[in-house]
Amino acid sequence: MRIAHQFAPPMSAMLAGLPGVTAASHVPQDSRWDLPTDVDVLFVLHGEGDDRARAMAAPRPAGWPGEVKLVQLASAGADDYPDWLFEAPAVASASGTTAIPIAEYALAVMLAHAKQLATVTLKPGDAWPERNNFVGQPLATLHGRTLGLVGLGNIATQVAHYGHAFGMTIIASRGSNAPSPEPWIKVVPLDEVVARADHLVLAAPITPETQHLLNADRLARMQPQAHIVNVGRGGLIDQDALLAELDKGRLWASLDVTDPEPLPPGHPLQAHARCRITPHVSWSNPDINRRIMERLMENIRRVAAGEPLLGAL
Amino acid sequence: MRIAHQFAPPMSAMLAGLPGVTAASHVPQDSRWDLPTDVDVLFVLHGEGDDRARAMAAPRPAGWPGEVKLVQLASAGADDYPDWLFEAPAVASASGTTAIPIAEYALAVMLAHAKQLATVTLKPGDAWPERNNFVGQPLATLHGRTLGLVGLGNIATQVAHYGHAFGMTIIASRGSNAPSPEPWIKVVPLDEVVARADHLVLAAPITPETQHLLNADRLARMQPQAHIVNVGRGGLIDQDALLAELDKGRLWASLDVTDPEPLPPGHPLQAHARCRITPHVSWSNPDINRRIMERLMENIRRVAAGEPLLGAL
Repeated sequence: MRIAHQFAPPMSAMLAGLPGVTAASHVPQDSRWDLPTDVDVLFVLHGEGDDRARAMAAPRPAGWPGEVKLVQLASAGADDYPDWLFEAPAVASASGTTAIPIAEYALAVMLAHAKQLATVTLKPGDAWPERNNFVGQPLATLHGRTLGLVGLGNIATQVAHYGHAFGMTIIASRGSNAPSPEPWIKVVPLDEVVARADHLVLAAPITPETQHLLNADRLARMQPQAHIVNVGRGGLIDQDALLAELDKGRLWASLDVTDPEPLPPGHPLQAHARCRITPHVSWSNPDINRRIMERLMENIRRVAAGEPLLGAL
Repeated sequence: MRIAHQFAPPMSAMLAGLPGVTAASHVPQDSRWDLPTDVDVLFVLHGEGDDRARAMAAPRPAGWPGEVKLVQLASAGADDYPDWLFEAPAVASASGTTAIPIAEYALAVMLAHAKQLATVTLKPGDAWPERNNFVGQPLATLHGRTLGLVGLGNIATQVAHYGHAFGMTIIASRGSNAPSPEPWIKVVPLDEVVARADHLVLAAPITPETQHLLNADRLARMQPQAHIVNVGRGGLIDQDALLAELDKGRLWASLDVTDPEPLPPGHPLQAHARCRITPHVSWSNPDINRRIMERLMENIRRVAAGEPLLGAL
């Protein structure tokens, strides 16, 4: 089996060492989308920043897809790849391989927000505040609050399980008509999720239908002190409208994804007291290479056996 | 029923309005432990800082306990009160009324530590790091890690439930021989808890037996990168020994309680890169007054009915 990929060491060495791999070729960074067609498997990852535009503009390789049988994406999302890539006989994402770390990140920022960790953590020289301050202006709990989920895939379902353990009420909206996976997750219309949530977690794919799903109108109808957590894609939120709300002293946001990434230097969201920005890191976990390699190996096996792919697109 | 208490508004007004209360008197702050003996119920809270020494030195009121039938503490811990207080016919703590917020705080700092929130949150002007940094030096997960609990009361059991939802292995040691409340909480010797934990949560009462329970010897046998969370009392840890370990680049700590409180100005733990200090706030929650009043009312009823108290001491 011949495989071509875009990965540096140590991933490249792991790929070359896979059982059954007879040739593993590296597609260089500067010609990232000039993909070969004389291999069996392509293993690729969308780039960041300027590379997005390069991916969109990349010309279809001559004779595409040629001998390619499987394109395995190393990302959960399928955005930011060239359109023609999806004409290959089988394309699969890594959806699900990072659900646990991303859902843990969502709970981390929800709890950090509720407990005001950035504020209550003493800096060198800080005086200790009076205990009575925390009676009159108490820290929040997740217990008893409402968790709204936009999307109900692997990540959101995992977030729901954590929120349920904390005694939250769970409401969710999803693009499909699939039933709720758990009796305690109430599937309701998107506008209801947005209007009721104390913590609103966005974990939907970005599509023409979900672009700016959280627009000025919906933001205005949120609870005044609601906390938005975006672990999906930056484009799910109308960022200008969000900024306008934050400037009014409404809403709070923890954004692991933005539009674009990176944000332009000096972007007001990055300095906003009501907004936490992390640089698209929620997927990061110690098992990342092992999990993604397992997905690749399993899908190679499934293509050969004619079985449905994991993360099929 | 006559009640005397140490509380300012709005609590004082709530106490005066309780059904059955014929007289509610306020014990002034500057004579806090000069308690009356011609009331039925005393409702008290240990002070902070210098008030600890004042409480320890407070003389027994003449004729103590006189007509006092119940002393209700507004704290979960029974330390930092005058010894003679416990000679009253019935004394109860508020243990359990703040288990949920304190356990949520423990998870908040565990997740903030795992996800390195203080580091990955972009400050104004910060450049975005390379994605590859988070492959080679990944964020951690709670999933698959070991949660060690010292103490297994209301707070620790609640922390255990949260940790279980995150897929952690749960081990605990407790002072009593009571069986584990859940089959997935393994009760093991203290030294095993300390040596195996990735996150070690201290939620034991402070007693002569637990003073400096986490001493230099036990600290030295912890996992090098283990994270200590103290939501019990500062005295559970030998702070000098902890500081020595942190200075070696071993261990991490999130301390909501210290010894003393507040820490002296300029204390090295408050400025240490491996230590997070919060000023004893984990109990704070929006329902604090309601929950404590419910405890008081229920224990007044139980004393009258001859039933065992909640939080009996």
